[in-house]
Amino acid sequence: MKTKKIAIIGASGYSGEELVRLLLHHPHTELVAVTSRQYAGQTLAQVFPKFASHPKSQSLHFSEPKAEVLAKQADVVFLALPHGVATEYTVSLLNAGCVVIDLSADFRLKSAETYKEFYAQDHPAPDLLKKSVYGLPEIYRDEIKKSLLVASPGCYPTSILLPTIPLLKAGLVKPTGIIADSLSGVSGAGRKAEMDYLFCECNESVRPYGVPKHRHLSEIEEQLSLAAGTKVTIQFTPHLIPVNRGILTTLYLAPGKHFSTEAEMKALNEKISAAYAKAYRKEPFVRLLEGNALPDTKNVSSTNVIEIAWRLDARTGRLIVMSAEDNLVKGASGQAVQSLNIVCGWPETAGLI
Amino acid sequence: MKTKKIAIIGASGYSGEELVRLLLHHPHTELVAVTSRQYAGQTLAQVFPKFASHPKSQSLHFSEPKAEVLAKQADVVFLALPHGVATEYTVSLLNAGCVVIDLSADFRLKSAETYKEFYAQDHPAPDLLKKSVYGLPEIYRDEIKKSLLVASPGCYPTSILLPTIPLLKAGLVKPTGIIADSLSGVSGAGRKAEMDYLFCECNESVRPYGVPKHRHLSEIEEQLSLAAGTKVTIQFTPHLIPVNRGILTTLYLAPGKHFSTEAEMKALNEKISAAYAKAYRKEPFVRLLEGNALPDTKNVSSTNVIEIAWRLDARTGRLIVMSAEDNLVKGASGQAVQSLNIVCGWPETAGLI
Amino acid sequence: MKTKKIAIIGASGYSGEELVRLLLHHPHTELVAVTSRQYAGQTLAQVFPKFASHPKSQSLHFSEPKAEVLAKQADVVFLALPHGVATEYTVSLLNAGCVVIDLSADFRLKSAETYKEFYAQDHPAPDLLKKSVYGLPEIYRDEIKKSLLVASPGCYPTSILLPTIPLLKAGLVKPTGIIADSLSGVSGAGRKAEMDYLFCECNESVRPYGVPKHRHLSEIEEQLSLAAGTKVTIQFTPHLIPVNRGILTTLYLAPGKHFSTEAEMKALNEKISAAYAKAYRKEPFVRLLEGNALPDTKNVSSTNVIEIAWRLDARTGRLIVMSAEDNLVKGASGQAVQSLNIVCGWPETAGLI
Amino acid sequence: MKTKKIAIIGASGYSGEELVRLLLHHPHTELVAVTSRQYAGQTLAQVFPKFASHPKSQSLHFSEPKAEVLAKQADVVFLALPHGVATEYTVSLLNAGCVVIDLSADFRLKSAETYKEFYAQDHPAPDLLKKSVYGLPEIYRDEIKKSLLVASPGCYPTSILLPTIPLLKAGLVKPTGIIADSLSGVSGAGRKAEMDYLFCECNESVRPYGVPKHRHLSEIEEQLSLAAGTKVTIQFTPHLIPVNRGILTTLYLAPGKHFSTEAEMKALNEKISAAYAKAYRKEPFVRLLEGNALPDTKNVSSTNVIEIAWRLDARTGRLIVMSAEDNLVKGASGQAVQSLNIVCGWPETAGLI
Repeated sequence: MKTKKIAIIGASGYSGEELVRLLLHHPHTELVAVTSRQYAGQTLAQVFPKFASHPKSQSLHFSEPKAEVLAKQADVVFLALPHGVATEYTVSLLNAGCVVIDLSADFRLKSAETYKEFYAQDHPAPDLLKKSVYGLPEIYRDEIKKSLLVASPGCYPTSILLPTIPLLKAGLVKPTGIIADSLSGVSGAGRKAEMDYLFCECNESVRPYGVPKHRHLSEIEEQLSLAAGTKVTIQFTPHLIPVNRGILTTLYLAPGKHFSTEAEMKALNEKISAAYAKAYRKEPFVRLLEGNALPDTKNVSSTNVIEIAWRLDARTGRLIVMSAEDNLVKGASGQAVQSLNIVCGWPETAGLI
Repeated sequence: MKTKKIAIIGASGYSGEELVRLLLHHPHTELVAVTSRQYAGQTLAQVFPKFASHPKSQSLHFSEPKAEVLAKQADVVFLALPHGVATEYTVSLLNAGCVVIDLSADFRLKSAETYKEFYAQDHPAPDLLKKSVYGLPEIYRDEIKKSLLVASPGCYPTSILLPTIPLLKAGLVKPTGIIADSLSGVSGAGRKAEMDYLFCECNESVRPYGVPKHRHLSEIEEQLSLAAGTKVTIQFTPHLIPVNRGILTTLYLAPGKHFSTEAEMKALNEKISAAYAKAYRKEPFVRLLEGNALPDTKNVSSTNVIEIAWRLDARTGRLIVMSAEDNLVKGASGQAVQSLNIVCGWPETAGLI
Repeated sequence: MKTKKIAIIGASGYSGEELVRLLLHHPHTELVAVTSRQYAGQTLAQVFPKFASHPKSQSLHFSEPKAEVLAKQADVVFLALPHGVATEYTVSLLNAGCVVIDLSADFRLKSAETYKEFYAQDHPAPDLLKKSVYGLPEIYRDEIKKSLLVASPGCYPTSILLPTIPLLKAGLVKPTGIIADSLSGVSGAGRKAEMDYLFCECNESVRPYGVPKHRHLSEIEEQLSLAAGTKVTIQFTPHLIPVNRGILTTLYLAPGKHFSTEAEMKALNEKISAAYAKAYRKEPFVRLLEGNALPDTKNVSSTNVIEIAWRLDARTGRLIVMSAEDNLVKGASGQAVQSLNIVCGWPETAGLI
Repeated sequence: MKTKKIAIIGASGYSGEELVRLLLHHPHTELVAVTSRQYAGQTLAQVFPKFASHPKSQSLHFSEPKAEVLAKQADVVFLALPHGVATEYTVSLLNAGCVVIDLSADFRLKSAETYKEFYAQDHPAPDLLKKSVYGLPEIYRDEIKKSLLVASPGCYPTSILLPTIPLLKAGLVKPTGIIADSLSGVSGAGRKAEMDYLFCECNESVRPYGVPKHRHLSEIEEQLSLAAGTKVTIQFTPHLIPVNRGILTTLYLAPGKHFSTEAEMKALNEKISAAYAKAYRKEPFVRLLEGNALPDTKNVSSTNVIEIAWRLDARTGRLIVMSAEDNLVKGASGQAVQSLNIVCGWPETAGLI
């Protein structure tokens, strides 16, 4: 397989660092450029001592993020930048013939209006929204294959969409009244020198934030609406917990059918099981838990796997679905590499297991 | 004020330790006995080095838990024992004229049938269920005053009941469809030498457990039903997170009234505000958050305070209420001491601030 | 006892916050002013939600730090400021008749030359160095009593000096070759929005820093030299560990006498024991551990206690002394309040247990 | 390269789990058996959910540890057992023609007397002590190549020996007066359901233990003595800190030569640098830090790398050397796999980067 040359714009944050880790060990990629305004001039080894044993880390220097220069160096460019900033690079790089895999929110939505509602600014390049593909491989594999612009999903959306979409598509749960209660590790806030994320402010602390209208709702609802074939509005509450990595999401769903007898419950359980099996049985990165097992972020840490389990509650008539993922891997950089593998025609697990 | 003599049965667990801490510094109590089968014979200082600077800690020895002996030593006895075990002591101690404040689940329910359903055994002394008072001071202050047997609430129930009861009583939220999503520190599991609670199994881990029918549901639903005047069944999902102390609960409630305009939302917000103010304005241990503030367990750690905040979501028509408490203080031992203060006619904040 | 009016300059950092906590609950103080450039205008409750249940927290507003204003309001002023900045306030406040208790490094040294060597600037008020007292109550109680300017010790120095000084004074250990290896919680770095102290940079991390010439060496060596009656130079290695609070120091000392037989070891142990007992038997905040017990920061957390234990090693001929303290209490604000109690003639434990 | 069949006896502890992780992904091994008395009959996926996505995890069942059965299944057997227990398996397996890589302390010492002194029992197979090789590849690579019994070093010894041996061999530091102060993550205590290692007992806690005569001293001193050509006795203080993984060791050494001028210091620094470079320049798993960098356990977590840095202190005349490793990888299972690679003639980094 032909090696591809890769650049990462914005490589000094937590997602960028995770991309570096994955791409340094990927069998078919050569990391040719990493950019960072703050660290320009320094080697990879200086900025990330943990990579210092990799031969590349001494020779690869962080550079200023210049689209024209990177376009000449790289076949594929990953953007690990804040929303809004990503767009300008995307336009130049696409014009120069690069494939772009964008980890920001800039191209995840189909609707420029929704973008404006949630990000409080006009979309800087609304035409590109038609060209981009939402990079959730388990749902959009075929579209990703042919795409030049992959908009890699957010961490919370991944943890909510993968457990919910198969149930909506199978008509097993109502598209109304969905609640997603999510707990995220602190790396989700990014590598920002802000008081709120200091060790002493996070350790021995648990807190909700961004209630009730977090920006990730925009892509979650757009994707759920597509799956349900009707407009879906959900409740979403993110919480910050003192772990480095991991998102645990608990979903409260209403099955379309009433179940009160043992037999009804068994039948419904089998339908749910079948829907998940159909969707994910062959997926290398979705782990459907069995028996008494429940998701635990420590079981997916540093892997591209999402764990999913569910329980029917005959007392309330609800279906509880729980998922666990590493917010930096399946929730960000690992999933982006999964899309890279699809775009390049490589085995989808290359560099990821 | 006359000093009362206090004994703690089961003083070596986390709740017991917290009781010791509070009662050693309480202005009106003398701690005369602490029991533990495992540590009988050792001094308080040996078992809990952190109390070794207290003069009492060298002279007070852990003893075997014998009701007849303790009844002669103490005016009030705290039970920090597993459910089932607490009952036998309670009967003897009440007969001997002691006041009993029980931190177990044995006397929290009015219904012996519910006890059997959730605790899988016949209630060992169903007659006493009529005599016990549910020790939630903000709700049952008057009853606690006259009681000889206080059943101190569980940690999760406290975090759910205090935010919900005023809304149900005021008819502001529907008694149906309530969801409580709770996150608890590891001390909630007790001081038990079990693999699941080892440092390396909890650190960098988040996980749900006891889904969907946790035992605490029994007292939560009984109390909510009393407040609502109708049978209430709720959804409750506990999660384990890597902090020592703290419970953060997020409640999903349905306001009785529709609100979609700004004006309707403002009016409803004022009603909720008024209901909470009426219930808790004068309560020393309930803190209603204002402005942008949201609950954070670190702000209530080692205190008897519960923080409450809420948000209406016009998009979903739901009311989100969030609470934070220290599971070992307001969720257990602090609340039990608050009941002690009420029973003894002391200022309710004695020894607690 | 007459209540004293207290102001805290620089009350928004971790030491300042701990001073606020202690002084809000102190029986003989009224907190009349707290200053912070960043938070001026906000109430105590807004800046520190955890104090919001205290009646004072709604009425007390952070103000700009103006010495002339504060001098009129307060009898005693605590300075929780960076070194260099503290001096200007000290001069004005002393002139205006206030007692000053300074938590910075500005008045801890007797030698202006040493100050210049370690802090890389001329001392801004060298004359005041003669008037200030090093606020280590167990060593300088009598001097503190009569002082108007108390220079409260650093967190590392406290953890090193209290275990070492009695041994040096008794001539039991050599003044040469002393090594102090210290582990500090992250609050020791202050509430600064810097990358190095983000949760994800500290959690699951342990690292030395400031090797080999940390600034605290200046006051440690000056004080050890005074105790030994000869110039003492020590080795000191601080490490950062992922806890909020706590310093654990391990000291490597050389007994003056050789010990190889059981009898020699026993005799030496008794001498050490006697030296410590003489120094600290009556001290309320020094806990000499017995038996198999070793210091543990969790046993002193949020208290003003320092734990000390020691072991003779016949294999190496060394004496190992270990101490544990809360860096924000005995290592900073608690010790400063202890000095306040001494200066004001109150019981030394007032507000501290 | 021919694939080797591998068994792990005692695969359910933390070292065993880490061996499983490494060997499941090793390019030249087939994991054919994992044993555990406690989990016999369960699949790898059931015991370790985190490996459930690996195809092998559903088919591989934990079995009872029977040497005769394992000897038929496997070419190489790893022992992750307590000391004392490992010996009986070793004898049987060697007799049956297996290569044994033992992670216990049973064959690390050359001297049966030292074993008895430190492990309080007669060595169960003293003859084998001559046949075993101390599995520190950077020091004993040639011997490991030819060995059938590799005694893989302890976690603390690895963190102390690799930084110290080159300096002793080069005669740059005195063999007397060496101090090693080590900080270990909780996984070092093993997966044991003991109170001391519960989350709430370790979180927000730091404590020394095993002072002054930890068992690991036996192998540390034996190896240092071999390097120095004279009997070496050291001071060693282990501490427990609240991280899952990682050991940080700070070594206090006395250079053989006096250095007080800039020139002397520079010359000595160059000699130390040269000694380390000679020893480790080509070593893939030893990272000599440069410039201002100091070791940090987070930079070696889950890798087989040890970081080493040093500082000369002209004030005290000492050399401070610091190292960081992952106690479960370079300190245990990774190093054992490194030895496997050497024994089997594979690239030494196979399966380790």
